[in-house]
Amino acid sequence: MALGQNGSGSSLQSICYERGSLRLLDQRRLPLETVYLDVRDVKDGWNAIRDMVVRGAPAIAISAALALAVEVYNIGSFNGTSGDAASFLVKKLEYLVSSRPTAVNLSDAATKLELVVSKAAATAVEAKPVFEAYIEAAETMLEDDVTSNKAIGSHGASCIRSQSKGSKRLSVLTHCNTGSLATAGYGTALGVIRSLHAEGVLEMAFCTETRPFNQGSRLTAFELVHDKIPATLIADSAAAALMKAGRVNAVIVGADRVAANGDTANKIGTYSLALCASHHGVPFYVAAPVTSIDLSLSSGDQIVIEERSPKELLHSRGGLGEQVAASGISVWNPAFDVTPAKLITAIVTEKGVIIKTGIDSFNIKAFLQNAPGICSD
Amino acid sequence: MALGQNGSGSSLQSICYERGSLRLLDQRRLPLETVYLDVRDVKDGWNAIRDMVVRGAPAIAISAALALAVEVYNIGSFNGTSGDAASFLVKKLEYLVSSRPTAVNLSDAATKLELVVSKAAATAVEAKPVFEAYIEAAETMLEDDVTSNKAIGSHGASCIRSQSKGSKRLSVLTHCNTGSLATAGYGTALGVIRSLHAEGVLEMAFCTETRPFNQGSRLTAFELVHDKIPATLIADSAAAALMKAGRVNAVIVGADRVAANGDTANKIGTYSLALCASHHGVPFYVAAPVTSIDLSLSSGDQIVIEERSPKELLHSRGGLGEQVAASGISVWNPAFDVTPAKLITAIVTEKGVIIKTGIDSFNIKAFLQNAPGICSD
Repeated sequence: MALGQNGSGSSLQSICYERGSLRLLDQRRLPLETVYLDVRDVKDGWNAIRDMVVRGAPAIAISAALALAVEVYNIGSFNGTSGDAASFLVKKLEYLVSSRPTAVNLSDAATKLELVVSKAAATAVEAKPVFEAYIEAAETMLEDDVTSNKAIGSHGASCIRSQSKGSKRLSVLTHCNTGSLATAGYGTALGVIRSLHAEGVLEMAFCTETRPFNQGSRLTAFELVHDKIPATLIADSAAAALMKAGRVNAVIVGADRVAANGDTANKIGTYSLALCASHHGVPFYVAAPVTSIDLSLSSGDQIVIEERSPKELLHSRGGLGEQVAASGISVWNPAFDVTPAKLITAIVTEKGVIIKTGIDSFNIKAFLQNAPGICSD
Repeated sequence: MALGQNGSGSSLQSICYERGSLRLLDQRRLPLETVYLDVRDVKDGWNAIRDMVVRGAPAIAISAALALAVEVYNIGSFNGTSGDAASFLVKKLEYLVSSRPTAVNLSDAATKLELVVSKAAATAVEAKPVFEAYIEAAETMLEDDVTSNKAIGSHGASCIRSQSKGSKRLSVLTHCNTGSLATAGYGTALGVIRSLHAEGVLEMAFCTETRPFNQGSRLTAFELVHDKIPATLIADSAAAALMKAGRVNAVIVGADRVAANGDTANKIGTYSLALCASHHGVPFYVAAPVTSIDLSLSSGDQIVIEERSPKELLHSRGGLGEQVAASGISVWNPAFDVTPAKLITAIVTEKGVIIKTGIDSFNIKAFLQNAPGICSD
């Protein structure tokens, strides 16, 4: 079984996993070098996450889960009961969570896996079935993320095609990185672009640089070139001129958090793209798994925007490289902005496309209650 | 006489001139080093322009004119008639124009100076009066640019203050560099910000990075820090979020070209800022000398947008530094975009503020015909 490699066709793999072996694409060295690092245990996994070898919320969570799966598979002998095995795994998961304490996906994944481990320990006597249950659950997480992304891609491509009847071939603009480098493979917004390309209708994928951390020019551009998808890089500020020139049929972006009314927090610059798209009558789509939806937030006003280090604007390479800006200048560097539901045409999830109930908002709760395979808890 | 130093108060000087001596701030070394280069003759001037020591259309034209003024002042003996002197000067001017053949301001300035030289030669016998006429004309050009900028600053500040009655202190967002580093001193849009600061009403000057060449983070930020004006740098894409947060009272930008209806070509990203400002009800001003107005263009549709090298996005430091983007990615890198008059609140010139005659356009021709001191040719 080589889930990472077979799970998402020919698209770039950042997580290469088969039972007993995990290799992570070192994203710190992109786009100049393509180097994979071996991850043999949780210590390697912890380092890879802490040192930004891997980034993107789903990718971090799955890499952590698989690092432990690899360690457990290669454990040799384990002296202890099923309960001891469960304690061992829970301790390792807690250690992994400490690599990036604020990553919600990571701690959510650990909680789910701990539940699996507890259940297995309750019914088994020996350690082995607990370890096996853990490995299978971690592998399922990888498979599910790719499956979910492919469903997002397929739903999104259908939606964009149906709403762009006049155009045989479509050009799409995206922002930041939402592809194989941020997920287990394939991607969310970039998954939709992959699907459009696979269906033979993609004219051009435009990607922004995505200042100040350049996820677009470094990572999205890298993926698009790797997958031989027709692609063009633009400065973030050139998007409006591109739309005015009639060269964009749709904008599709990912989401860090979607509120109950559809307001969406995403990488800084998303809101600006949405305003420009709205002005030019270009449909604006958000692509995200349902786990990104937070029904406890009634609107985007409740989303607190993290501010990041001024260094990202003052120095090249996201703060690591040479000084580029004037010494002594103050900086405002918000990580995200909030795009109001009013500017969003539809929200694409793995369960289907959420369309608007009014001009200004979505009824996401109703969608989730009626969507197949979703618990209404 | 030290026109450059006294002509614009305490603001940063990129052109330091006194009769017989010219020093140019080497903009290639900004923001890390403040180094002035001596320009002793037209050869030095030609090199400084060609090698980008000096940039910005008015600054280039004036530097060229002054380089020749310095050479002529220090010429020692000249064997020849007034006609010989005129020929000598015209030849030197033609040589200077060849340093940047596409710079319209430079060739316009040369044409004006050639006229001065011809007139002087027609009434004089000896060379000396021709040289003196040239030097005075070049110095007048420097003085006039600073005077014109200060008038733009003053008109713009009054206009913004009168249209923002609710706010005692004002925060203003600008784009690209339109300051002392692009003009003879003081600046156009940045001149307006300097005036607001001098009048004690500036709360904060926000400047964008201005990708891909970073004129904002390198040059505008440098000027604002130098002049101790309260200033904050943002990514271009963060402007919409800043406006949404209610932190911008006005946007003010320069112009490369203004069409007869008010449509304005300016640095890429200006159009995006104008759309965001319009959405948030933030007034959007263009500041430019009347020489930037081209009545032969009925609208912005007639302005051809230059595309620049992909290198500016693929490598740091405007193409000169390390690779930052993925190899093999295509790039669309327009130098300018066109902001339609509809999105512009007013156009600030040295002759006064041009306000709208309708919702969508300005009658600039009528303004110019009625403005004091403007020929209606």
